[in-house]
Amino acid sequence: MDKVRVCVDAVGGDEPAEVVLAGIEAALEADADLEVLVAGPEEVIAEFCATHERAEALVAPEIITMEDDPITAVMTRRKSSIVLGCRAVKKGQAGGFFSAGSTGAVTAAGTAYVTPFKAALEDRRTAIRPCLTNALPNRAGGLTVLCDMGANPDVEPLDVVRFAQMGAAYASCVLGIDHPRVGLLSNGTEEHKGSAFTHACFPLMSQLVPGFAGNCEGTDLTSGNFDVVVCDGFAGNIALKSIEGAAKLMMEELKRGLTSSLAGKVSAVLMKPMLRQLKRKLSGDAKGGAVLLGLRGVVMIGHGATSVEAVKNGTLACAQCVREGLVDRVADAMGLDA
Amino acid sequence: MDKVRVCVDAVGGDEPAEVVLAGIEAALEADADLEVLVAGPEEVIAEFCATHERAEALVAPEIITMEDDPITAVMTRRKSSIVLGCRAVKKGQAGGFFSAGSTGAVTAAGTAYVTPFKAALEDRRTAIRPCLTNALPNRAGGLTVLCDMGANPDVEPLDVVRFAQMGAAYASCVLGIDHPRVGLLSNGTEEHKGSAFTHACFPLMSQLVPGFAGNCEGTDLTSGNFDVVVCDGFAGNIALKSIEGAAKLMMEELKRGLTSSLAGKVSAVLMKPMLRQLKRKLSGDAKGGAVLLGLRGVVMIGHGATSVEAVKNGTLACAQCVREGLVDRVADAMGLDA
Repeated sequence: MDKVRVCVDAVGGDEPAEVVLAGIEAALEADADLEVLVAGPEEVIAEFCATHERAEALVAPEIITMEDDPITAVMTRRKSSIVLGCRAVKKGQAGGFFSAGSTGAVTAAGTAYVTPFKAALEDRRTAIRPCLTNALPNRAGGLTVLCDMGANPDVEPLDVVRFAQMGAAYASCVLGIDHPRVGLLSNGTEEHKGSAFTHACFPLMSQLVPGFAGNCEGTDLTSGNFDVVVCDGFAGNIALKSIEGAAKLMMEELKRGLTSSLAGKVSAVLMKPMLRQLKRKLSGDAKGGAVLLGLRGVVMIGHGATSVEAVKNGTLACAQCVREGLVDRVADAMGLDA
Repeated sequence: MDKVRVCVDAVGGDEPAEVVLAGIEAALEADADLEVLVAGPEEVIAEFCATHERAEALVAPEIITMEDDPITAVMTRRKSSIVLGCRAVKKGQAGGFFSAGSTGAVTAAGTAYVTPFKAALEDRRTAIRPCLTNALPNRAGGLTVLCDMGANPDVEPLDVVRFAQMGAAYASCVLGIDHPRVGLLSNGTEEHKGSAFTHACFPLMSQLVPGFAGNCEGTDLTSGNFDVVVCDGFAGNIALKSIEGAAKLMMEELKRGLTSSLAGKVSAVLMKPMLRQLKRKLSGDAKGGAVLLGLRGVVMIGHGATSVEAVKNGTLACAQCVREGLVDRVADAMGLDA
């Protein structure tokens, strides 16, 4: 494979740094052409980098936590792993950045330091809004791309068009789908369904998004009838977290049912490996993490409740996005200069 | 129990009328103080009403289907079961109306014929927007009320306040929750999270909704941390259908897992009754159907993919809402004259 170098945040997420470091180690073992720039406080990363050939230290004495106000934290803690990781991408020291830290802080730092592309809007050129994108497992056995998952609660119709163009580029680049079917998330599939906002988006989508297949609804995030589902970040976040909550409820009901009778207890023992697999599949980390599309570099965000496996997958997925040229392909899809 | 009389749509839903009639029969058997006004074409309902003492015919020769444009259908088919059922409530011939027919058509007919309350808005009195409300099972073993589930894709902040007041009245009246905790659906629980719209709602909610407990997120529809979750009908519909889709995906994955190995097959046999119960619980019919709050009469809508059990539960739930005085209690909660 092509040599690639990504930066990984050693202190992002709710787990201790050892978990992240073990994940980086697993990724380095899995991919012999991968180099990792490990960002974090010296006492956390120095030994790891000294003992791993393809790991290099990016010393970042400050830490941004999940509790910090994202924008204030990014503005004041310039020596945090999140800020320095994004700056490493901007300076070309790394092809991409992966963090399981605060979504808000990584989005803010990515926007400030990796910087978004600009595109023509009427007679001005304005910055594209970075769009948080991930893939969910669907009932057809594939994956469905959801964008925006929460970076932009308030947007204009043209922003949604751009999310759709970027989401389609992600589907083809990362998931290998040739002609992605794009749906506009609404409260019904018929064209007349929707809010005033989706009604304003619909004709623009028809005109500017190849593969636009009309309105879709919440069930279509998992139906497999659409490859890309596009919406503002408010609706996307609600959809995603509603699914997360439903999955938790079902797993708990199932466990309760499984331990409430002898038949259930026998089943539980038999089914344990299957249940574990199901949970993993539905954790939202099917493709290693969420990508901020629209930036001039790969920035990927993992789930805060992370694990060795999740950090490994996120690091490898970040490397894949760099190798596949995701950033250039997104720019191409939107007719921009990369 | 108090004698109560509700109207049931015999031709609503995707199933044949025999299913609905069997559901009405089961409801009549379960509740000796219930009378049912059965709305439908004469050839469908005459024999049933002749042979069931507490069933009376409301002959409605026209039918509104799921495929019809709701508003056009309600305006042109004045002799449909949906229109005549709503008119029966308005005229006091029935305390409430239950239909498993088109949500859009029942909402339109309920608004036109049962009519919403009016409330003061600035210096005018305007009609309240009817709000589609239901209860979902949560992880704490209780139910969480979601309103609006889809009747109003575009609303003003004051509409959301009214939805919250009505949803809280439903929670206390139907679910027996004394001081319901009300959450505003947003993309995060912190006060600064949300869209421009939820930011406009937040201070009004704080001021006008007793029990307002701040922002909540998609996971809180099933977390059990809130008794009532309030939002516009666009977000509510997306949340509800995202949950429905996730539940379908998980049931299918589970079935696939259960039949792919010998251990799984053994488990499947042992677990069948439990899985069936889980599916029922998550079908969204925990309280028999969705209620249109804000109307001057009880109007309840069941899932289109109905069953004998669902029609029975919907009919009994409709009767319960009438007996509990839901309409007056909603008006009280909003400081209106009933």
